[in-house]
Amino acid sequence: MHEFELISSITSDVSVGDDVTLGIGDDAAALRLTGDTVVTTDILVEGVHFKRQWSPARSVGRKAIAVNVSDVEAMGARPSAIVVALAFPKDLDQVWVAEFEAGVKEECARAGVSLVGGDLSSSPTVTVCVTAIGDLEGRLPVTRSGARVGHVVAVTGNLGWAGAGLVTLQRGFASPKEPVAEQLTPSVPYGQGVIASDRGATSMLDISDGLLGDLGHICERSGVGIDIDTSLIEIPDPVARVAAATGRNALAFVLAGGEDHALAATFPTEVLPEGWRRVGVVVSGDAVSVDGHPWDGAAGWDHFA
Amino acid sequence: MHEFELISSITSDVSVGDDVTLGIGDDAAALRLTGDTVVTTDILVEGVHFKRQWSPARSVGRKAIAVNVSDVEAMGARPSAIVVALAFPKDLDQVWVAEFEAGVKEECARAGVSLVGGDLSSSPTVTVCVTAIGDLEGRLPVTRSGARVGHVVAVTGNLGWAGAGLVTLQRGFASPKEPVAEQLTPSVPYGQGVIASDRGATSMLDISDGLLGDLGHICERSGVGIDIDTSLIEIPDPVARVAAATGRNALAFVLAGGEDHALAATFPTEVLPEGWRRVGVVVSGDAVSVDGHPWDGAAGWDHFA
Repeated sequence: MHEFELISSITSDVSVGDDVTLGIGDDAAALRLTGDTVVTTDILVEGVHFKRQWSPARSVGRKAIAVNVSDVEAMGARPSAIVVALAFPKDLDQVWVAEFEAGVKEECARAGVSLVGGDLSSSPTVTVCVTAIGDLEGRLPVTRSGARVGHVVAVTGNLGWAGAGLVTLQRGFASPKEPVAEQLTPSVPYGQGVIASDRGATSMLDISDGLLGDLGHICERSGVGIDIDTSLIEIPDPVARVAAATGRNALAFVLAGGEDHALAATFPTEVLPEGWRRVGVVVSGDAVSVDGHPWDGAAGWDHFA
Repeated sequence: MHEFELISSITSDVSVGDDVTLGIGDDAAALRLTGDTVVTTDILVEGVHFKRQWSPARSVGRKAIAVNVSDVEAMGARPSAIVVALAFPKDLDQVWVAEFEAGVKEECARAGVSLVGGDLSSSPTVTVCVTAIGDLEGRLPVTRSGARVGHVVAVTGNLGWAGAGLVTLQRGFASPKEPVAEQLTPSVPYGQGVIASDRGATSMLDISDGLLGDLGHICERSGVGIDIDTSLIEIPDPVARVAAATGRNALAFVLAGGEDHALAATFPTEVLPEGWRRVGVVVSGDAVSVDGHPWDGAAGWDHFA
């Protein structure tokens, strides 16, 4: 299949939102947004972010969209559109590409974003780069710098599942299924970013590298400390089962496991939006603590460590 | 160097435009645009779009920005901002990464765009993915579908240089220097997209795959033919020299050589904006012809052929 045929097959049945004034097929797409434009990009590389033997192509496509749209949610913006660049070996099975694109479209539908453009190239390494565009709709962005002492720290979405799923896959197992599914495609709490913003969130971010590590960015940017209260942390049942089976600390999956793409935010009051749960409080200081003490486990994920 | 240190060094001295309300350092950036948002993405892969032995890192960085911003120009939009994802082997020389980023910043300054975000990953294959955002500032996008019979076909920017430069490099030579420089980093006619739109361009595109091949997209989308008048085509001196030295057809470099990133547009009148030159006319039909006849040379570049 030649490049233009491939593009044609990918773009043949794309549905787009009302804010798309020009979709796929020109030098660029055009969007009519009502507020400031939010933009974020993520690159996913085979062997680094996914393994083809673990991740079906459809999961890779879904994950590429999910992790990127999650960053738009984290600004308190409405996700609007995405562009997807895909590079892959010339001899890659065309079914893989078709399934990848099906995953992209499936997750776009879940996230409420329009696929408005892309690029294709050959490459020895399967590589996906997604850029997501959001519409602040008149809101100010919720940054990492607005947390103040006394604010409540809360999360929405799954924590610990993706890390537990990774350990499961690394041991050669495919169950328990739920954590493995979360590792392959995180369940992003779509819509919660705007809700948090409208309910007064003072800082917010996407938890991609582990709760403690990412909350450290809020500490740094806001000039505060954050104390996590483990009595408020629920250990999901499947995460507990993986921890027990592997001799690992279940709490560590929840506090430091990466790739969950839950949202964390600070709120000025204890009355939280539905779906958000309190996990700690903003304190004076400059770092994240757990029950008042430094955490001694791994705090995140570094691609170059 | 760890990921966060690397990001910090890259983002330390970035200057941004007035339309950037939130720059690098959060989950996403935010832009305050005055018109519709234009978005386009390109992926550049080592061995496909550039070779490290030919292209200095600074040229790769510059080219990645140039080819992408060119697509924003082609819509008649003002280029506003870019995000850059870079994947590279863990053992890649850090000087390469630093020079790449210097090239990115240099071309951003030339193009008048702000670097507002990015992503880094390890990968066995050096891969760059750039997404550019433009502001239509109240204009309608200039698409590929507005060409009508009788309209003048015109171009601005260099044609044939990049193709001649590629042949020069393939033969192991580094001169003549100008075509080689154009192959390594095309000179995009920044600002001409908005000028063409304001002067009534009825269709426009970026010539990335060769003039004839890309004009074919206007024919297809506008339901017209285009006839190129070779008496209007200037053969640049360095292109003529490469053609003579390699026994190739100089006209073929100009008409079918890729990667120049000039702009082609159709205008309703013969009075063209400064910097634009007439090359042909829109006729009834459905394909591109040269002096009234089909062209028998290669018409473009297909990454999967």
